[in-house]
Amino acid sequence: MADDQTLSNAPPRPREYEILDNIRHTFAEKGFDGASMQDLARAAGMSVGNFYRYFPSKAAMVEAIITRDLEDVRDKFTDVVAASDPLAALRCGLHARIAEECMGCPDAPLWAEITAAAQRKPEIGAVVGKMERGVQGYLVNAFALIAGVPEAEAARRFAAHAAMVVMLIKTTAIQAQADGQRCRSDLTALVQRMVDMILDEVSAAKAKGFDDARD
Amino acid sequence: MADDQTLSNAPPRPREYEILDNIRHTFAEKGFDGASMQDLARAAGMSVGNFYRYFPSKAAMVEAIITRDLEDVRDKFTDVVAASDPLAALRCGLHARIAEECMGCPDAPLWAEITAAAQRKPEIGAVVGKMERGVQGYLVNAFALIAGVPEAEAARRFAAHAAMVVMLIKTTAIQAQADGQRCRSDLTALVQRMVDMILDEVSAAKAKGFDDARD
Repeated sequence: MADDQTLSNAPPRPREYEILDNIRHTFAEKGFDGASMQDLARAAGMSVGNFYRYFPSKAAMVEAIITRDLEDVRDKFTDVVAASDPLAALRCGLHARIAEECMGCPDAPLWAEITAAAQRKPEIGAVVGKMERGVQGYLVNAFALIAGVPEAEAARRFAAHAAMVVMLIKTTAIQAQADGQRCRSDLTALVQRMVDMILDEVSAAKAKGFDDARD
Repeated sequence: MADDQTLSNAPPRPREYEILDNIRHTFAEKGFDGASMQDLARAAGMSVGNFYRYFPSKAAMVEAIITRDLEDVRDKFTDVVAASDPLAALRCGLHARIAEECMGCPDAPLWAEITAAAQRKPEIGAVVGKMERGVQGYLVNAFALIAGVPEAEAARRFAAHAAMVVMLIKTTAIQAQADGQRCRSDLTALVQRMVDMILDEVSAAKAKGFDDARD
């Protein structure tokens, strides 16, 4: 899905992105089912016919939102693996992401909608699954480097750790929203300690060596 | 969330509960907004007019679903605080709950819908908030017993721990659904280790004493 013509240093397709910025709010406000193509076209300042040319379905919109978000994630992981201390860089990046989500991510209502829709609509579930596998792939990549194991081994050993990091970020964003745009600071710190536990388990594999690092 | 007809000392209002059993599926399938009062009345085998007499709004249905679920939770916590080793009983109960959610909870799509609706609709947000505060209250209660501190102190010190337990259970249920009704067993084990970390932090307060147990 990450189509390589939209690398960070390549110009993105600005019209689609501009439309996405204008419709996110409508999805979040009216709900995934509640937002009609008419509502979305109006939010984008376009005729319905023209809007359909850019996004023929809601699944296409979700896919475009996700593709753009994945580009951001990829850029961050590029920095992590290039860092002199990838473990410290990843820890710092994840702590910052948790703190950001705790401050209230403006996209949280949209993500809650997409999460719910993913359970009902197979085409949305497929797009969301693809994104989560993408993020988990970047994490496994970084974990392989940190643990000093080949990537296939890291994928086998740390798949749950990667999934859990994604789950923690999502649930924190949704919780911040529920708490009125901001988590309690002790909750932020606790989620960060849980991220540390995950990273400790990963980096412990390095200390213990390749063959005997399984629990 | 398992529907327990033999609920000990809470004589429920059986007609409402029977209706709830019949409409859960419709909510989960059609979405919170997508399910009309007509759809719900039909699923309950009632006329719309009669249905409105029991549940005048969707918020009323969510409230009833939540009230019944809270009764189950209350019964489980009654057992925990009566146990000779409340920490072991709570750990065991939470591990079992995580394992259950990982096996795929039939209500997961409904909870994803309710979570999304809670962010959009203040009246649903209020009902969900009441439930989460209820569950967190039971947890804080048990934490106070485990840490050997007064309840007000436990509420101040362990609010984030209680919130995190609820977040872990919810996110695990939603993840199991996304993964096709069942989490990977290594993910189940990792979530259980995170619950252990939370309980370790709570019980460490006892070892360290009342006044100096803060991080």
